[in-house]
Amino acid sequence: MSAVEPAFVAAAEAAADLAGQVIRPLFRSPLLVEAKGDASPVTEADRQAELAIRALLRERFPEHGIWGEEYGPERPEAEWLWVLDPIDGTRAFVTGRPLFGTLIGLLHRGRPVLGLIDQPGIGERWIGVEGEPTRFRSPLGGTARCRPCPAVGNAELSCTSPDMFEPEDRPGFERLRAAARRVTWGGDCYAYGLLALGLVDVVCESTMKPWDWAALVPVVAGAGGRVTGWDGRPLTLGSDGRVLAVGDPALLEEAVGLLGG
Amino acid sequence: MSAVEPAFVAAAEAAADLAGQVIRPLFRSPLLVEAKGDASPVTEADRQAELAIRALLRERFPEHGIWGEEYGPERPEAEWLWVLDPIDGTRAFVTGRPLFGTLIGLLHRGRPVLGLIDQPGIGERWIGVEGEPTRFRSPLGGTARCRPCPAVGNAELSCTSPDMFEPEDRPGFERLRAAARRVTWGGDCYAYGLLALGLVDVVCESTMKPWDWAALVPVVAGAGGRVTGWDGRPLTLGSDGRVLAVGDPALLEEAVGLLGG
Repeated sequence: MSAVEPAFVAAAEAAADLAGQVIRPLFRSPLLVEAKGDASPVTEADRQAELAIRALLRERFPEHGIWGEEYGPERPEAEWLWVLDPIDGTRAFVTGRPLFGTLIGLLHRGRPVLGLIDQPGIGERWIGVEGEPTRFRSPLGGTARCRPCPAVGNAELSCTSPDMFEPEDRPGFERLRAAARRVTWGGDCYAYGLLALGLVDVVCESTMKPWDWAALVPVVAGAGGRVTGWDGRPLTLGSDGRVLAVGDPALLEEAVGLLGG
Repeated sequence: MSAVEPAFVAAAEAAADLAGQVIRPLFRSPLLVEAKGDASPVTEADRQAELAIRALLRERFPEHGIWGEEYGPERPEAEWLWVLDPIDGTRAFVTGRPLFGTLIGLLHRGRPVLGLIDQPGIGERWIGVEGEPTRFRSPLGGTARCRPCPAVGNAELSCTSPDMFEPEDRPGFERLRAAARRVTWGGDCYAYGLLALGLVDVVCESTMKPWDWAALVPVVAGAGGRVTGWDGRPLTLGSDGRVLAVGDPALLEEAVGLLGG
């Protein structure tokens, strides 16, 4: 176990608050409507939010590393490495769906030990810390606890888009999809949050970067689930971008078997 | 033009309020988590909400007809016919996504003249009345006005699921999808609401029942867009379930051409 200090959690929360202040004014704004699906105003908000978060973390923990989607790695060899994506779910954001999120993760020697998923529009927040129960607050209700679901045949599967897979990923995903009870599309990081609330049983995606998954691992683990690669092994900075989340760890073996063929 | 009386609009709003009171306590509830993807608790909420709405409408307008998903038609030959779906987007509801909606439409001699889309979780509401600008209220912001987008190649396409199409629908949809700039999955009625906010340019779906589309028509029309069949003609109770919505009416001809082959 790592020693995730309360000051780290407080910094993650403060950083998410900062990001929300930058992001909220753009959501559904005339600027976004006029951009007609062009993501550049979102990229601009993403950058501003990342700069704000970086400044806060740099000031509080000058010895920590930081790696964000927009500005790359800074001291990536540090013992503690923050991994950031201020706006995960650009497509959801651009089309006005309040399911995008701000992701703030902290790795200790490469292992995700702290994760925060924030939904700045609705005001929902998941906080996961290694070894602790995940905390969740939302005006819409919900309890951070994965539900039992030991068989893929009973599982509610979620995936952001059928278009996100590389050709070599497709056969494995299609086997899992065919075996699952049902699939719901859309969601980005939000789907992992719903898995941590016991409302989704499996999320299976690909082409994911470290800033897409780092924050999700402790959130799901603290609710009783697991986030791994398609091989069932822990995700690392060298992982291949294939991500599998299960609410019930008993489901992992069957899901991995289907994905592996 | 029909004479949509203010009392009709007030009744639609009161009915949506009633539905929200029935629906909200179930959203993300332990009952739903325990149901593990089984929709029966949702069906129960759907039924209770529909009974409450029917009682209200019957009392206020005893001469009007009512047609709801759960309890079928009542005086369907009446001049004014209410068409209801208390929980549109069962899959979204069951998985905890706040993108389901309550749909209340009113047809005058078969033509949709009043429509209400309510999102009881977040507290968003679209109200469309024939010949009037669509009204929208939401804590998340947004303005009810479709944006210009005269070419499919620039269009943001939305569709609830690639699995919703009958085999004979698929070639048309695939042509539209290939021509569109991008596609975002998920959304149910919410996608039409986003189109009415100028954040989505085309929604194309199939296997839609009258209670799925009746409320959407006036909402989109009052924001400057159009909801039609895949043939570009107005939807009627005898329509084939294929629904096309465009934010910019100039887009209609090209979209219809792609769908028709």
